[in-house]
Amino acid sequence: MAGKGKLPGEFDLIARYFAPLAAKAPGALGLKDDAATFQPPAGMELVFTTDALTADLHFLRSDPPDLIARKMLRQNLSDLAGKGAKPLGYLMTTALDDGIDEAWIAKFAEGLAQDQAEFDIALWGGDTTSTPGPLALTATLIGAVPAGRALRRNGARPGDRILVTGTIGDGFFGLAAHRGELPDLAEPARRFLAQRYVLPQPRVALGRMLAEQGLAQAGMDVSDGLAADLAHMCAASHCGARVEVAAVPLSDAVADLVAADPALIASAITGGDDYELVLAVPPDRIAAALDAARQSGTAIVEIGSFVQESRLTFLDRDNRPLAFEKAGFTHF
Amino acid sequence: MAGKGKLPGEFDLIARYFAPLAAKAPGALGLKDDAATFQPPAGMELVFTTDALTADLHFLRSDPPDLIARKMLRQNLSDLAGKGAKPLGYLMTTALDDGIDEAWIAKFAEGLAQDQAEFDIALWGGDTTSTPGPLALTATLIGAVPAGRALRRNGARPGDRILVTGTIGDGFFGLAAHRGELPDLAEPARRFLAQRYVLPQPRVALGRMLAEQGLAQAGMDVSDGLAADLAHMCAASHCGARVEVAAVPLSDAVADLVAADPALIASAITGGDDYELVLAVPPDRIAAALDAARQSGTAIVEIGSFVQESRLTFLDRDNRPLAFEKAGFTHF
Repeated sequence: MAGKGKLPGEFDLIARYFAPLAAKAPGALGLKDDAATFQPPAGMELVFTTDALTADLHFLRSDPPDLIARKMLRQNLSDLAGKGAKPLGYLMTTALDDGIDEAWIAKFAEGLAQDQAEFDIALWGGDTTSTPGPLALTATLIGAVPAGRALRRNGARPGDRILVTGTIGDGFFGLAAHRGELPDLAEPARRFLAQRYVLPQPRVALGRMLAEQGLAQAGMDVSDGLAADLAHMCAASHCGARVEVAAVPLSDAVADLVAADPALIASAITGGDDYELVLAVPPDRIAAALDAARQSGTAIVEIGSFVQESRLTFLDRDNRPLAFEKAGFTHF
Repeated sequence: MAGKGKLPGEFDLIARYFAPLAAKAPGALGLKDDAATFQPPAGMELVFTTDALTADLHFLRSDPPDLIARKMLRQNLSDLAGKGAKPLGYLMTTALDDGIDEAWIAKFAEGLAQDQAEFDIALWGGDTTSTPGPLALTATLIGAVPAGRALRRNGARPGDRILVTGTIGDGFFGLAAHRGELPDLAEPARRFLAQRYVLPQPRVALGRMLAEQGLAQAGMDVSDGLAADLAHMCAASHCGARVEVAAVPLSDAVADLVAADPALIASAITGGDDYELVLAVPPDRIAAALDAARQSGTAIVEIGSFVQESRLTFLDRDNRPLAFEKAGFTHF
């Protein structure tokens, strides 16, 4: 492991690895300036989100650097997806620990480049420093949505259906698999789950379609756990919700785990890091929403309804409410 | 010192201390959402800047929390001033170490509130986590400037005069004073310099006037040291500059230090953290620029000229070029 003595200077590092990532953003001025300029598109509202990631808290320091980079972008891209915004660009800060060498940076930049291409975004600016503590990264992503069309948490109304994309619980069990905590798991399932944790799939295309076409009354991404995030949506919307647990979409890997130990369904539903979308869709727009999901290649299912009574209930196959010890993920 | 056991949960912390800071930004949605929305003002270009700060590297962990908060904002506000932008809002991430208690957060939020009022900005969003390492903060500031009017580094032309605001070198000697490294300094001078380091004065009002009225060909803030930043401006503008060192504005405290040891002028000119503006102003706009400085209550002086020959020269009273060992501040 090379110490920071082997790392090129700040300006060289930026010129070599980060400036190419800003090539498509003229306002980034080749990262040679203290600030970036951006001409906002007319008629659009901008959407901003930011996340701080610390090694061995939000990712493993030993994770491949390109995947760390991509997850950093993707968890922010998921926030933009939750608002229905088209991602535009990002600013990033990196506080590099002593063990970071040039190869690490090169691979990290490679991951950024890969997801920049996949999501059509560019690096607008940033700050590169060192730290005596754990490697720390932040990204601030900027997106745009037609003015007034951003999905919000507070628009759900009683009678709206609850739709969820992808599969739920992969984030929770994926972290466990990634940490080697599920030793009994068959290798393909372990690899699938770990991959889902390490490289979530932000539902950007569908989020945009739903916002632009006005198909969802409320929407957000599932990052703190389905139970907690749905509770947030209910609270903001001043209503409640009833979820049929059997309808919650599970991957085969998680379904197998739950089949072996039914109590694990609680972990799937309260665990974080899924980065799927949860949506409130009125019955008369369900067909259009499902159509948008099809067009964007996104799996989506209905799992319940919003209700007048301000309580969030998860019902089992026998219509009995389930109680969860833990409402969801918090950062402390 | 209370450990994180004494800290309220993430959501309580946000609701109690950070949400009030977002009250004036409707798009921040009370910080209850994953992302903030913002309707950009018509005809304006947005300006973005971000900085990562780590305890005992960029500030002292023992510094008063309100001053840490204000410096974090101010060094970013200075970047906006360097572009001539009006500050609008910011996103912030906080990775809190184990020693942070609620009183610290309360005081930190108080500092944010104070500078939000002084610079007319609001908190748009953020992320609050904990860290096993040193306290780490980032801020991303967003400002606006009339489209096409942003000050840049690359507009200086031979013949333009070099103007500098405030005084140079206070940041360098202020850090030394703040660290107790200048024991012979009289107490008022020590306090003045430390204060200049801890609470720089971003030249936002003047920057805006210069950009809006088109009075500067190029401009930037002096954060890496006058020598380095002027070198950046020369490189971007493909020209050189000649600076009369005797004309570089010094505070009384720094002037006294330099009088006692003339070699210290090098530290004043190459040291970082001044957060003043350096500007390229054509001769026929000098009067208007000085007038703008007067109106905005900003001290400003002419220290030299940009020249054809692509070399940056600092000349002493006898017109002899000075050589500096260290070109300026880098983060490694």
